[in-house]
Amino acid sequence: MATQTNSTEKVKSRGLEGVVALDTELSFIDGQVGELVYAGYDIRDLAKHTSFEEVAFLLWHGRLPNKSELSDLESRLRSERTLAPMILDVLAATPEDANPMAALRTATSALAHFDGEAEDPSREANLRKAIRLTARIPSIIASFDRVRKGKAAISPKGEGSTAFDFLYMLNGEEPGEAAENTFDVCLVLHAEHGLNASTFAARVISATLSDMYSAVTGAIGALKGPLHGGANIEVMKTLLQLDASGRNPREFVLDKLQRKERIMGFGHRVYKTMDPRAAILRDMVEDLSEESGNRKLYDMSMEIMETMEKEKGLYPNVDFFSASVYNMLGIDTDLYTPIFAMSRITGWTAHLLEQWKDNRLIRPRAEYTGPKGLQIVPIERR
Amino acid sequence: MATQTNSTEKVKSRGLEGVVALDTELSFIDGQVGELVYAGYDIRDLAKHTSFEEVAFLLWHGRLPNKSELSDLESRLRSERTLAPMILDVLAATPEDANPMAALRTATSALAHFDGEAEDPSREANLRKAIRLTARIPSIIASFDRVRKGKAAISPKGEGSTAFDFLYMLNGEEPGEAAENTFDVCLVLHAEHGLNASTFAARVISATLSDMYSAVTGAIGALKGPLHGGANIEVMKTLLQLDASGRNPREFVLDKLQRKERIMGFGHRVYKTMDPRAAILRDMVEDLSEESGNRKLYDMSMEIMETMEKEKGLYPNVDFFSASVYNMLGIDTDLYTPIFAMSRITGWTAHLLEQWKDNRLIRPRAEYTGPKGLQIVPIERR
Repeated sequence: MATQTNSTEKVKSRGLEGVVALDTELSFIDGQVGELVYAGYDIRDLAKHTSFEEVAFLLWHGRLPNKSELSDLESRLRSERTLAPMILDVLAATPEDANPMAALRTATSALAHFDGEAEDPSREANLRKAIRLTARIPSIIASFDRVRKGKAAISPKGEGSTAFDFLYMLNGEEPGEAAENTFDVCLVLHAEHGLNASTFAARVISATLSDMYSAVTGAIGALKGPLHGGANIEVMKTLLQLDASGRNPREFVLDKLQRKERIMGFGHRVYKTMDPRAAILRDMVEDLSEESGNRKLYDMSMEIMETMEKEKGLYPNVDFFSASVYNMLGIDTDLYTPIFAMSRITGWTAHLLEQWKDNRLIRPRAEYTGPKGLQIVPIERR
Repeated sequence: MATQTNSTEKVKSRGLEGVVALDTELSFIDGQVGELVYAGYDIRDLAKHTSFEEVAFLLWHGRLPNKSELSDLESRLRSERTLAPMILDVLAATPEDANPMAALRTATSALAHFDGEAEDPSREANLRKAIRLTARIPSIIASFDRVRKGKAAISPKGEGSTAFDFLYMLNGEEPGEAAENTFDVCLVLHAEHGLNASTFAARVISATLSDMYSAVTGAIGALKGPLHGGANIEVMKTLLQLDASGRNPREFVLDKLQRKERIMGFGHRVYKTMDPRAAILRDMVEDLSEESGNRKLYDMSMEIMETMEKEKGLYPNVDFFSASVYNMLGIDTDLYTPIFAMSRITGWTAHLLEQWKDNRLIRPRAEYTGPKGLQIVPIERR
């Protein structure tokens, strides 16, 4: 049972750990047993039986779609993927060495200028904006990746799933069924995860009754941080570093631990056992390894995992195995966080719709620890 | 004395009211007596004796500058005001009816692409970025206002104070001393105010170790909300509506109250008496009225204030009188919130520097109130 605070009482919690800031019907995490539920459904069931588009509908509407609702959503997503010319101009003018999350942040902010409903606060308009954002963020990521490589951006096919059209725009050729399905499961797994820092940032912004683009732009900025969405990039760097060194994974990890270096992809503020998403992704890495006949990444990962559990009692989180999946799909390392955003946009927008249903400003307090009562000394005598 | 929470205990507070999320040395608010202190100095003293640039130094360094430190900061600000051509292109490509805060959000995000230190997390680089942001945000606001009106953007003079060069770029002519000084005091008054929603959003974003541009872009998105920075726009609309109606201010207010309409610019979650900034701004409105010989706005405002205090026990906040000051300075109503941002950028960046000194992820929890254990029904049977 939670203690309810009242305004005369003051509670202090650095980082707000242990403080419940709001109610949600979107997801439930049991960190002790390693369970993740989206709106009533276990993540393992969703990963096995539903598409990313079904999950998007689930998060926005609180229930799974029927056939006609799903096909309606799919066709709306397909028809909304094209970017306005100014967005492509912004991406073309962005230096090729820009951080892809910074490029995504700027372009997503600019999407608002070409959405006639950007400032419409109605639920109906916000649902339409959620669909537009979910449709266009993949186009931004793929277009930026192409133009920074000196290639022409590819227009969306306007066909197939989000996973299909994204991989098509990114690579210039239609993905195979296995790649599309694997990527679709990754999108399902990253769609929603309670009050993580980016979702919380989005809700703080939205609680001022600002608009959906403002909140999502802020969330992208938060996800960009190495302690949040940037973690799987660090995981991949470590795996590549290990591979290049030719060393034994166990010794490599022990060495890092002895030097007090952090191994990314392990441990989580919420999960005290294995993240259920990590288990699903681990099986995917194993399947992809079998198919390709190259088990190197999988074997290295398993040995790192076993060493970390034995030495530190830490379990892999979602970032640890998603890095390998994306690598095997041939995706550039610095796109892992933007890809996280193209999935999490569904959870962010669902949280915004939930916030605005019963809005309240989110405003904690700070405790002042500085001086008081100072007198201003004229500048000549400072 | 604050209660310290530990991880086994769970505390619930919707909107985080009454919860202390962190320590700060930047500002102290005593809402009971109506006191606001920046890093030890009373806001009334600062408004009377220091410039905006001195306050910026105070917030970034925790002490007032001496003469050479101030002149160094002033000259760095002057030399950093010019915008990269792409930023001007982005502003030119932004539709003229775009929300100016949305335009500021996009352009500020894009500044990162032309800052070679954007991803440098060192304190020294972040201090330089704070100066660049403080120098360039005024240029963005003035340039957008001109291009949306079909006029050419004016390059900064690279002379004088932030207030001087901003009014010059906005109007195309150098401001008089009275206008510059009045505007400078407004910048001092809006520079910092504890953990308001935009500052809090910035700190949540920065706590993932994301970069300064990401955090500031998120803060701009939060400030855009009508419950936060957008409030003085609503105040001005009300004043203009009252003026156009030709009605008696007291009756106008009583009428609105009877219809349960909210009168913006009154009451504050923190201040239970008159906001000290409101008192300073009220005197400025009175002075400007004397000078211009037009007391209309002042008289209307005073009557609204008296009615609200008598009828609702509510006091004016900073937004109530800043609206009239900006109106008398000839600034368009929809620029009031961007102007708030060009001042608050100093407080935001000071909070980011403080956050990164001793970083900790800011991650409260949500309480799940939805269903559990649902079984997925095949789509044909939904």
